[in-house]
Amino acid sequence: MAYTYDVATAVTSDGPGSYRLSIQEGWDHFGAANGGLVMALATRAMANEVGPPDPVTITGHYLKAVATGEALVEVEVIRSAARHSTAFATFRQGEGTCAVFLATFGDLAETDVDLQDGAPPDFPPPDACVGAQVAGVDDVAVPAWTAHLDLRIPPDLAGFATGSPSGRGEAGGWIRFADGRPPDAGCLPLLADAFPPAVLNTGLSIGRVPTMELTVHVRRRPEPGWLLGTFRTRFMSGGYLEEDGELWDPAGHVVALSRQLARAPRRRSKEADNETAHGEQV
Amino acid sequence: MAYTYDVATAVTSDGPGSYRLSIQEGWDHFGAANGGLVMALATRAMANEVGPPDPVTITGHYLKAVATGEALVEVEVIRSAARHSTAFATFRQGEGTCAVFLATFGDLAETDVDLQDGAPPDFPPPDACVGAQVAGVDDVAVPAWTAHLDLRIPPDLAGFATGSPSGRGEAGGWIRFADGRPPDAGCLPLLADAFPPAVLNTGLSIGRVPTMELTVHVRRRPEPGWLLGTFRTRFMSGGYLEEDGELWDPAGHVVALSRQLARAPRRRSKEADNETAHGEQV
Repeated sequence: MAYTYDVATAVTSDGPGSYRLSIQEGWDHFGAANGGLVMALATRAMANEVGPPDPVTITGHYLKAVATGEALVEVEVIRSAARHSTAFATFRQGEGTCAVFLATFGDLAETDVDLQDGAPPDFPPPDACVGAQVAGVDDVAVPAWTAHLDLRIPPDLAGFATGSPSGRGEAGGWIRFADGRPPDAGCLPLLADAFPPAVLNTGLSIGRVPTMELTVHVRRRPEPGWLLGTFRTRFMSGGYLEEDGELWDPAGHVVALSRQLARAPRRRSKEADNETAHGEQV
Repeated sequence: MAYTYDVATAVTSDGPGSYRLSIQEGWDHFGAANGGLVMALATRAMANEVGPPDPVTITGHYLKAVATGEALVEVEVIRSAARHSTAFATFRQGEGTCAVFLATFGDLAETDVDLQDGAPPDFPPPDACVGAQVAGVDDVAVPAWTAHLDLRIPPDLAGFATGSPSGRGEAGGWIRFADGRPPDAGCLPLLADAFPPAVLNTGLSIGRVPTMELTVHVRRRPEPGWLLGTFRTRFMSGGYLEEDGELWDPAGHVVALSRQLARAPRRRSKEADNETAHGEQV
């Protein structure tokens, strides 16, 4: 039986450099697709067009919400070489361009570590953490697609959901696919965009946090098992915020670094917030 | 009299979406143009094609060294709107594509700060720091173009140049244009890529550090005066490293966050290193 992630991110060739795909029901993020899923889909299409296997750096700019249903990815290879290849991808739905991506692929088979200044976050074991479905019962709705994940949030970082935010822009916890699919390089963009927004723990805002731009550096093919994620938002000004993330594998190595620029949510009622679609830009 | 930066980053319309420019002698980085300068040029061309004034997030992928002399930037506007516009740019020289860029422009006139978790680095005053031209006299050559800057490195961070690296992947100091040009949003990509590589202070390597990908978030229009920069490399593995940067203005605000993925240099002789052109990828 195929893993749900592999079904959800399948792309089908539709002519030179063109791929059809579908955002499935149950994989939506409040009716739209989240930025990490759209990036994972675009990356999968681009991987078909280039030689080297691993997406070492991917940037997406998100212009318009991606709805459930059919979509198209068009890939232009900018430079193809044995060691590094670079591609540009356009993600379209109907007549609209929803997102664009730039990615460079390489080969992460070499695993020498010359410098690691930092350690995985020291979280309580998964069983001592709060399941994301539980964490979300009170103030914060849980996106449908995260049901495909097993996501455990340390109690210290789960306060955003129960009216007791930690007071810092921080998020994180344990993450793996619910059906046991082992992580690989290609799924790391999705897992880097799966945790609740770090800004929610500041207590400054309860609104949604639409991603404008997301960059993921894949640094290593992850070992199987639980990954650890840690995310920080330090600066919110002029209506923007950044969120910086790290994903660590069970062998104690960094497997991905992420940074996104998002529109900062305003403190406001949940009713007003619900009128704003995820990813919408005005 | 025009400031040297404005002359060096001038672009001339050459048909719809197309701009001619020149990498000037004296603005090269060991014979090539550095990634920040190429980004500043591409950003200036893109800014001509979109409505909103400020580049809030820009990513470049660097494929091939940019030599001094003529070059061309071709801009495709992906989405144009009053609040945010997104463009793609291709930087060409002769028949080759040297770099590609994705940028989203917005308006940073609004200056409300909702969250600032962190402070500017606490460096000794500029006069108690080491000039970059002095810092480079021993082990590490100084790129020609940095003569257009006034760049002061705290003694604690200047050890890379005299055989006494600090042992951590860290860099930074004070920076401004040598001719008094005030900083603006558009020049921040250049200033974010102007300090010596942070990895040199690990003592693990003396080679060059070719940028593969650079992303700059411009968070605020800087106040005039000295900017403070601080840069960190924490992970070097599989032949890659990241460098994360912050630029702060004299008013004590973050004005830009940067992150790049670069090829990690190997410990080797200076002779062998000199054979590798900056930005070259095999």
